[in-house]
Amino acid sequence: MKQRIYDTRRQDVVDFEPRIAGEVGMYVCGPTVQSAPHIGHLRSALVYDQIRRWFAATGHRVTLIRNVTDIDDKILDNARIAQEAGGSEPWWGLAYRIERDFTSAYDAIGILPPAYEPRATANIAEMIAIVELLIARGHAYQAEDGSASVYFDTGSWPAYGELTRQRREQMEDAADSEPVGKRDPRDFALWKAYREHEPESASWPSPWGRGRPGWHIECSAMATRYLGEEFDIHGGGLDLRFPHHENELAQSTAAGHGFARHWLHNGLVNTGGQKMSKSLGNSLFAHDLLEAARPIVLRYFLGSAHYRSVLEFSESSLSEAAAAFERIEGFLERAAAQGVPLADPAVSGPTIEDLPVEFVAAMLDDFAVPQALAVLHTAVRAGNAELDRSGGSPEAQRLAAQVAGMLAVLGLDPRDAVWGSDAASAGGGDDALDALVTALIEERRAARAAKDFATSDAIRDRLLAAGIALEDGPNETRWSLA
Amino acid sequence: MKQRIYDTRRQDVVDFEPRIAGEVGMYVCGPTVQSAPHIGHLRSALVYDQIRRWFAATGHRVTLIRNVTDIDDKILDNARIAQEAGGSEPWWGLAYRIERDFTSAYDAIGILPPAYEPRATANIAEMIAIVELLIARGHAYQAEDGSASVYFDTGSWPAYGELTRQRREQMEDAADSEPVGKRDPRDFALWKAYREHEPESASWPSPWGRGRPGWHIECSAMATRYLGEEFDIHGGGLDLRFPHHENELAQSTAAGHGFARHWLHNGLVNTGGQKMSKSLGNSLFAHDLLEAARPIVLRYFLGSAHYRSVLEFSESSLSEAAAAFERIEGFLERAAAQGVPLADPAVSGPTIEDLPVEFVAAMLDDFAVPQALAVLHTAVRAGNAELDRSGGSPEAQRLAAQVAGMLAVLGLDPRDAVWGSDAASAGGGDDALDALVTALIEERRAARAAKDFATSDAIRDRLLAAGIALEDGPNETRWSLA
Repeated sequence: MKQRIYDTRRQDVVDFEPRIAGEVGMYVCGPTVQSAPHIGHLRSALVYDQIRRWFAATGHRVTLIRNVTDIDDKILDNARIAQEAGGSEPWWGLAYRIERDFTSAYDAIGILPPAYEPRATANIAEMIAIVELLIARGHAYQAEDGSASVYFDTGSWPAYGELTRQRREQMEDAADSEPVGKRDPRDFALWKAYREHEPESASWPSPWGRGRPGWHIECSAMATRYLGEEFDIHGGGLDLRFPHHENELAQSTAAGHGFARHWLHNGLVNTGGQKMSKSLGNSLFAHDLLEAARPIVLRYFLGSAHYRSVLEFSESSLSEAAAAFERIEGFLERAAAQGVPLADPAVSGPTIEDLPVEFVAAMLDDFAVPQALAVLHTAVRAGNAELDRSGGSPEAQRLAAQVAGMLAVLGLDPRDAVWGSDAASAGGGDDALDALVTALIEERRAARAAKDFATSDAIRDRLLAAGIALEDGPNETRWSLA
Repeated sequence: MKQRIYDTRRQDVVDFEPRIAGEVGMYVCGPTVQSAPHIGHLRSALVYDQIRRWFAATGHRVTLIRNVTDIDDKILDNARIAQEAGGSEPWWGLAYRIERDFTSAYDAIGILPPAYEPRATANIAEMIAIVELLIARGHAYQAEDGSASVYFDTGSWPAYGELTRQRREQMEDAADSEPVGKRDPRDFALWKAYREHEPESASWPSPWGRGRPGWHIECSAMATRYLGEEFDIHGGGLDLRFPHHENELAQSTAAGHGFARHWLHNGLVNTGGQKMSKSLGNSLFAHDLLEAARPIVLRYFLGSAHYRSVLEFSESSLSEAAAAFERIEGFLERAAAQGVPLADPAVSGPTIEDLPVEFVAAMLDDFAVPQALAVLHTAVRAGNAELDRSGGSPEAQRLAAQVAGMLAVLGLDPRDAVWGSDAASAGGGDDALDALVTALIEERRAARAAKDFATSDAIRDRLLAAGIALEDGPNETRWSLA
C-alpha cells in the first residue's frame, strides 16, 4: 500500500513518492518569534512531528527543517513598545527570548528537534541571491519611488494563484506595511527599504540599498538552502496558505526552483466555541496549557483530531483526552504488573510489521491519527479483556506489544524518558506514597470506627512526622504534603 | 567600595567602571559545537553567569552575548567522518544538535540565557565588512598564492602581542590548516578559501572568492554587532588567551574599534590528578556529570574554586561539595520547619543591602566566590546555632534572609523553580515517602524482635501492596520501589 497525502495544490489526495527513495525532505513554517507560543503553534508542530515520526517508522530518513522568523514588523513593534515603557531589550533579544520559549514548549510536548532550525536573519545573503535572480528573470523590480524596496511582479507570472486556485483579477491587494512604489497593488515585497524610525541593526546592505527581507522570501531561501531547490513536502498552518505560501511558491518557481512537490496544511484550533476557565485564559498560551494538563495528555489531545480538521478546544475536550489517555496508560501499568514484558521504547524503535494492519492503513491514508488512535483503543480494550481472562498470556503480550508500538510511532509512550517524572509517576514514588497513605488512612478509619483512638491517633502522628497532613471531611479524609 | 577585576591585558587587578553608568556589556566566548559539552564548558559558563548575576545584583543592566561557533574545521571533520561511516547528518545538522546539547546542559545548572546567542554562520556579512576594513587600512592582504584566503598582517600592527605580553619575534607560527600564500608564518587567516573536498554549503561568497571565516574574526564581528564597537568585558577560558583573544584584539583594534575594555579569563578544570570512576569516564561530559550529581550540587561545585584558579575535579571533591551544599539546604529546611519566613526568590531579587558586608566585599574583590561561600557557611552555622538556642527568633530570621539572599545572588537557591523536582525534593513527596517507609520498617523490626510475626508480615505486605520492596540485610533493611 502506498502513502497517500492530501496535497493542497492539487486539492486532492495523491500518492506520495519521495523524490529520492527512502528519504523525505520536509520544510515546516515555524513561528514568528514576537510573543509567547499558543495552542495553535503547538498543534502545528505536533502535526508535522507525528507525520515525521511516521515517515521514520516506515523506513525513511527524514530531514525536517523548521524555521524561526526573527525579523518582522511585529517583533520590531513589540520591542519598541517595551522600550518606550522603560525596557532595554533590543528586538533581537526579544526574538531570542521568545525563540527559547518556543523551544521549551515544543520540547515539553515531545516534539523531536528538527534537523536544523534556521533563523531568517542568518540567511539574508541567500534571500538577496533569489531576489537578484528574480530581477534578472523579469519577475521582480526595484520600487518605482526610488527606494530600496523590491517587489515581486505578480503580473509577470501566469501561474500566480495556483496554490489557492485564485485568479489574479480577484485577488486582494498585498498587505505590505508601506506599499509605495509598486506597479500593482497585488505585488508583494521581496525586500523592504530601511525606514528611519526602525533600528539600524534591523537592516542589511543589499544591491538596492539597506533594508530587510519580506516575509515570504525568507522561507523560499531557507527551504532551498537546507533541502535543495526541490524537496518533498512543505507544511504549515492553513492560515498561511494565502498569501504566504502562494507567494513562496510563485517566487521560488519563478526563480527556476522546483521547490515543494507537495503542500500540506494543518487545520486551526477553535477556542471560541466554549467559555474558557480563568486559569487558562482565552489566549491559550502554551505555558498555561502545560500547567493545566500533563504534557503527554496535551500531546494526546492535540493529535486527537485529524490534522486537516479544526481542533475544538474546551476544558471538557481536554478532560476527555486525559481520560482516554489514562485508559491506555492504565492498561500498560496493568500489563506490567501482571508480568507482561514490554520493550523499552528507547531501545527498539517500532517496526511497521509489529503494528496492527488497521493502524498502518489509517496512517497511510493521509496520516489519519484519530483512526489510528481508535485502533489503539481497540487493542487496549482487547488487552484488558485478555488480562481479565488469563493474565499475562501470549495474546496479552501480543496486544501489549502492539499498544506500545503504536504509542511509540505517535510519540505517546508514557515510559519514554522525554516525559521525565510526569509520566514516570505511573509506577514511581508518587504512586507508592499515595498507595501507602491511602492504606494508612483506611486503617485509621477502621480504628476510629472501632473506637480504638490510640491506634487512630498513632497513625495520624506517624503521617504527620513524615510531613503528611490529614484533613477529615464529611465523607472522606484527604491528605497533602505539609 | 569599587568593583575590582583582574584584567588579563593589564596583568593587574583594576577598578571596574562601566562604559555607561549602570550598564554592563559582556561578550563571552561560547563553544565550538563539534562534540558534547564537558566540564570545562560548564565551568566557563558558570563563571560568567555568577559574574553577570553579581552585576545585576549591584544594580547594573547586563547585556551578555555568548556566541556559538558553528563553522569550523572540527565540525566539518566530525560530520564527514560520521557520513563516511554511513550517517546522513550534514555539518549544519551536527552543529545544531550539539548546540542543543549545550543549551540543555547550561539550563540544567541554572545558567541564565544570554541576551543573545549569535551563530557565527549568521554573521558572515559582518565578518566580511571587518576584513574589508582591515585590507583598506593596510592590516590584511589577500593570499599571495592567488586563492581567496585573506590574512591579518601581524607585522603591520605594532601592538600585536599586547594581550599576552609576547614579542612578535618570539611567537609561534599561526596554526592555520592550510597556511599557503602568507607573507609571514605568524599571520593568521581572516578568510579561508573554499577547498574542493569541503561541502559547498560550508562556504560563502566574498569579495575575494568563496570561503569561510577564520575563527578569530567571528568573535570580533559578533561582539561588536551586538555590543557596539567598544564594550566593557570580554570573557573566556584561559586556553583562549592565545592565539584566539590576542588575534581578536589585534584585528578589532586595527580595524579602529575600541573593542573590549577589560579581558577576563577563567581557569581550567584539572581532571587528571585523580582516577575517575567508570561511570563518569575521564572525559567528564556534562551528561555524565548530571547523572552523577544533582545539578544544583554540580553548580555549587563548579563555583567552589576562584574563577581564575584551576578547579580540581575528583569524585571526592564533588562529594565534599554535595555535603557542603546539603548543610546550607538543611539549614533552610530547618528554618522553614521552625516557621522562619523566607522570601520567595522568584519574587524578590536580592538587594545588596541585605547581604553581609563580608560577602559583598568578597564579590567586589574580583568576584571571590569561594570567600563569599565561606561567609555563607558562617551564616549557616550561626543560623543553626540560633535555631538550637531560640527557634525562629528575629536573629534566626535575619540570618536565614541573609543566607537566602546570598544563594540568590549566586544562583544557588534550591527553592528556585529552575531546579524543578531535583531540589524541591527537599521537603517534597520523596522525603515524605522515605520518612514513612523508614518508620514502618522500624515498627516491623520492633514487631519481629517481639516475635509478633503477624504484625511484621502485615507491614511488609502493606508496603508491597504500595509497590515498595524490602530487602533485609545483616544490619539493616533497605527499601526500593518495586
